[in-house]
Amino acid sequence: PGSIESKCTADNGKPMRCWKDEEDVYFPVSYLKKRFDMTGRVGKDGSTFELFTSYAKMRTPDANYDPLGVFGHFSTYSVETRDRVRCISAKTNVPMSTQWDPVPYYYPIQIAQYGLQHYSRMKLESLNKTDSEVILGVKSNEWKGAAGMHETTERLFFNDEEKGKVVNISAGYSLANAGAYVYLDKSTDLHVVSFDWKPYDGNASFTVLAKMKQDDLLVLINYVFSEGNGKCVWQEEEKSFDDEFIVQKPKKDGQVSYSYSYIGSKPFGEWSTVTRDILVDVARALSSGENRKKDDNVVLHPGDVRLVSLGFRGQLAVKQQIFQREEQHLHAFKSAADWLAENQDVKGGWAVPVERSIADRKLVLPPGWHSAMAQGHGISVLTRAFKHFDDEKYLNSALKALELFKTNASDGGVRAEFFGNVWYEEYPTTPGSFVLNGFLYSLIGLYDLSKLESLNSEHNSKIQEAKELYSTGIQSLKQLLPLYDTGSGTIYDLRHVALGSAPNLARWDYHAVHVYLLKWIANLEKDDFLSKTADRWIGYAYGKRAKHN
Amino acid sequence: PGSIESKCTADNGKPMRCWKDEEDVYFPVSYLKKRFDMTGRVGKDGSTFELFTSYAKMRTPDANYDPLGVFGHFSTYSVETRDRVRCISAKTNVPMSTQWDPVPYYYPIQIAQYGLQHYSRMKLESLNKTDSEVILGVKSNEWKGAAGMHETTERLFFNDEEKGKVVNISAGYSLANAGAYVYLDKSTDLHVVSFDWKPYDGNASFTVLAKMKQDDLLVLINYVFSEGNGKCVWQEEEKSFDDEFIVQKPKKDGQVSYSYSYIGSKPFGEWSTVTRDILVDVARALSSGENRKKDDNVVLHPGDVRLVSLGFRGQLAVKQQIFQREEQHLHAFKSAADWLAENQDVKGGWAVPVERSIADRKLVLPPGWHSAMAQGHGISVLTRAFKHFDDEKYLNSALKALELFKTNASDGGVRAEFFGNVWYEEYPTTPGSFVLNGFLYSLIGLYDLSKLESLNSEHNSKIQEAKELYSTGIQSLKQLLPLYDTGSGTIYDLRHVALGSAPNLARWDYHAVHVYLLKWIANLEKDDFLSKTADRWIGYAYGKRAKHN
Ligand SMILES: [Ca+2]
Ligand SMILES: [Ca+2]
Repeated sequence: PGSIESKCTADNGKPMRCWKDEEDVYFPVSYLKKRFDMTGRVGKDGSTFELFTSYAKMRTPDANYDPLGVFGHFSTYSVETRDRVRCISAKTNVPMSTQWDPVPYYYPIQIAQYGLQHYSRMKLESLNKTDSEVILGVKSNEWKGAAGMHETTERLFFNDEEKGKVVNISAGYSLANAGAYVYLDKSTDLHVVSFDWKPYDGNASFTVLAKMKQDDLLVLINYVFSEGNGKCVWQEEEKSFDDEFIVQKPKKDGQVSYSYSYIGSKPFGEWSTVTRDILVDVARALSSGENRKKDDNVVLHPGDVRLVSLGFRGQLAVKQQIFQREEQHLHAFKSAADWLAENQDVKGGWAVPVERSIADRKLVLPPGWHSAMAQGHGISVLTRAFKHFDDEKYLNSALKALELFKTNASDGGVRAEFFGNVWYEEYPTTPGSFVLNGFLYSLIGLYDLSKLESLNSEHNSKIQEAKELYSTGIQSLKQLLPLYDTGSGTIYDLRHVALGSAPNLARWDYHAVHVYLLKWIANLEKDDFLSKTADRWIGYAYGKRAKHN
Repeated sequence: PGSIESKCTADNGKPMRCWKDEEDVYFPVSYLKKRFDMTGRVGKDGSTFELFTSYAKMRTPDANYDPLGVFGHFSTYSVETRDRVRCISAKTNVPMSTQWDPVPYYYPIQIAQYGLQHYSRMKLESLNKTDSEVILGVKSNEWKGAAGMHETTERLFFNDEEKGKVVNISAGYSLANAGAYVYLDKSTDLHVVSFDWKPYDGNASFTVLAKMKQDDLLVLINYVFSEGNGKCVWQEEEKSFDDEFIVQKPKKDGQVSYSYSYIGSKPFGEWSTVTRDILVDVARALSSGENRKKDDNVVLHPGDVRLVSLGFRGQLAVKQQIFQREEQHLHAFKSAADWLAENQDVKGGWAVPVERSIADRKLVLPPGWHSAMAQGHGISVLTRAFKHFDDEKYLNSALKALELFKTNASDGGVRAEFFGNVWYEEYPTTPGSFVLNGFLYSLIGLYDLSKLESLNSEHNSKIQEAKELYSTGIQSLKQLLPLYDTGSGTIYDLRHVALGSAPNLARWDYHAVHVYLLKWIANLEKDDFLSKTADRWIGYAYGKRAKHN
């Protein structure tokens, strides 16, 4: 027996087509997806249609968490491919965000996540394999000069007492000039370039020429001493010498040129190290169109780009040892840790320089706000950096970060109260917003600090403080956690209690984060309530619901 | 184009049949009903299938509430047909519950609701029509005696100074005897019987013979001075004189006999009034099988039963004025008010004599517990009775009922706190349960009392107390209301916060109650937040959902 077409309505709403057979009436999946936020696809057998409550996979962490080890699931992160990341700054080597402002800024949570991502991958990879590495430019004949009537390129090779084999370069500084360059290894796995150089003035620059595997597009990535009008990466405009007008021609003649705003870690005339992931820099560059949209985000993977050459312009010296590698985890991690240690404010925080507004501007944080999530993540980076580099500057920064946990949101801190229960605010609005995930991450940061081994008595009293802040947070968590449970999903925050609005439901990928973090903390606490709650929340993702009365 | 049969799965679960056409995949309604608690039916056109989120209709109250008028939607109630109502006691004329104990007991919330139901209908009907009423037994020849060899029936007619025309009856007291009786009016609308009598001892009884319209079954309803082993109604066992064994034969010979446990409002030898709704008494009797189930609940409507006769046995006098009416609203209301005034304990409450356990006995109230909903409803009955009967006993009782609102649940009162916010508990467990609907009803009770006109100074100070308790409750409501919002429905209570369990979701008929009560209080308070929240909650019943982050 077959089915017959039928007319249906849902909730006195618009009619829709249904099918009816002798047993049942059948409603369209398009209605289910819209009405219940469900996801559907044809299964691997090619015919079974599979309907899911949650599009996000429910993951749980390893039972054994090492506060100096991998940071949860962060090894799977790719901060640098997020559309809201304008670039990895060539000035600081940390991400710059355009999430809440078109002008790129340093967002401390993003920076810390970048650091934790790379640290975690470093920890995992140190167990699995040794990175490939190629060294170039050791022989003088690898160093090429431009052959053209508009420029001269001088290359003086000598031995430096400190650096060994060095090339002193003098070339025209215009980006139109090729300068002195070295051909790079063609292996598409080796997308990280690292070298030591000594630029003599701000006219010095370097460029990596890369080639897209897919369409042979040549992409020039220039690193220039320039503020770039506040941009971290921008497209260079082609200039023709006999044109009065500047004409922007993307992909003209199979070539496109972008510049990154660069600043060295040392004064001019001093040696410093450069490390750049060109795969990332190309992707960010290609994603940085003037009127860019989310859809314009370019995500590149190892294999998508081949490095062609590395060129230098202006007055400078380079060590004859150009490294080409697969990864730069340690460098990225240290960059994040250094940014945090060097950019902490007097309150012990890392202020966000842009305004954040929530709930149709009912809750507004003016530029300069702090976040418990930034404090927590920052601590997690710094504790690891302290142990990894054995450098007390990181520990001191981590300890100083505790201060804001004791400072009320209304006083510029991150501490709030929900009916007498202390909460550490990701967004410390007044009235409070009580975001769950940021609070949980902040607890993990406090835990990481609380687990450092005994140090001196001054440090130990601060570590005791971290323990107390952590315990206070755990108490609050146990009191307030049920308020985030809708019986079929979770709520992202508790803004609605003060605002009297509808709850801000967590979409499934945030629900997955809630589950993961709850399991993480349940493991730390060996707590049955937290674990059972997480299990129930996992069930919601598979269609289970709480009972009604 | 048609559809083809397809295989589907939901949430990696059991496969089910679907249908597929060129536009969509179609899932069975049976899955939707189960997964999302939805309701479906074929529409009035006979072909359109209508799917609903809520089976319960969303109603809202009149904008203008009179604290001495109709009590919200209670005119639509039918307490007496609820399966959990064993009977309307023939001793007290108020309902007896078997909800949490098979032995019927007085449940104060039920009694108050019964009173408010009848008061509300009385108020409405007083505007619409005059009740039909028939008076019987005025003539001596209406009074019949049994014609049988096993009994004598004496009927002495005389004029009583106080009562007028009276019949003194002397008849065998066995229920097998017909006694002295009057034929009743055959109109099926006239199912309420009322008369004045003076029984001389506990062997006196009366019986109404009724006939089921549908199957001509004769139902004898006996009202006997008997405890009935704690039952309020039971089936009489037929006794055959030449049988040693008692054989229970329901519907033998087209007749069945039930007895109600009766106690007069006056001592033996004094006049008192009897009023019984025979339609209700027959329904409750027929529903009272020994191993009865919810399915055995018999609901009768006017027209289902015809009264045949009213008979008397034993030594007694009856006024020759048997009333037969359509309704007994005033009597039922007064019965409830009197029960409340006469059964209030020293704490000012109406204790529930049975245990109440919640959440798999994690929360237990031993027998003797009080309820804010009982206090609130009780006050709503008593304030109306005070004004209607102009009797201060009702006012004094209402004022005394305030005491428990100031007494903590842990001390046997109904006051609880949820993170510092005062709550009046329908079930005052420790930790608290925080049921929403009972709290809202209790606020309405406090409101009703707070709106009584100025009285003497002692009364006014108590009324001021009611105002303050009400205002405190309104403050709490505004603080805590968002916690009952799941973004697609509401939660029945907040037990889960203390217990760390899943939320106890409100089924749709309780959601409808939440909406109604919220609108009711929004009108009292002229409060936009409460009204908008109610509107949002109405939307949930029609498939709207809160946004996710
Ligand atoms: Ca977050
Ligand atoms: Ca209730």
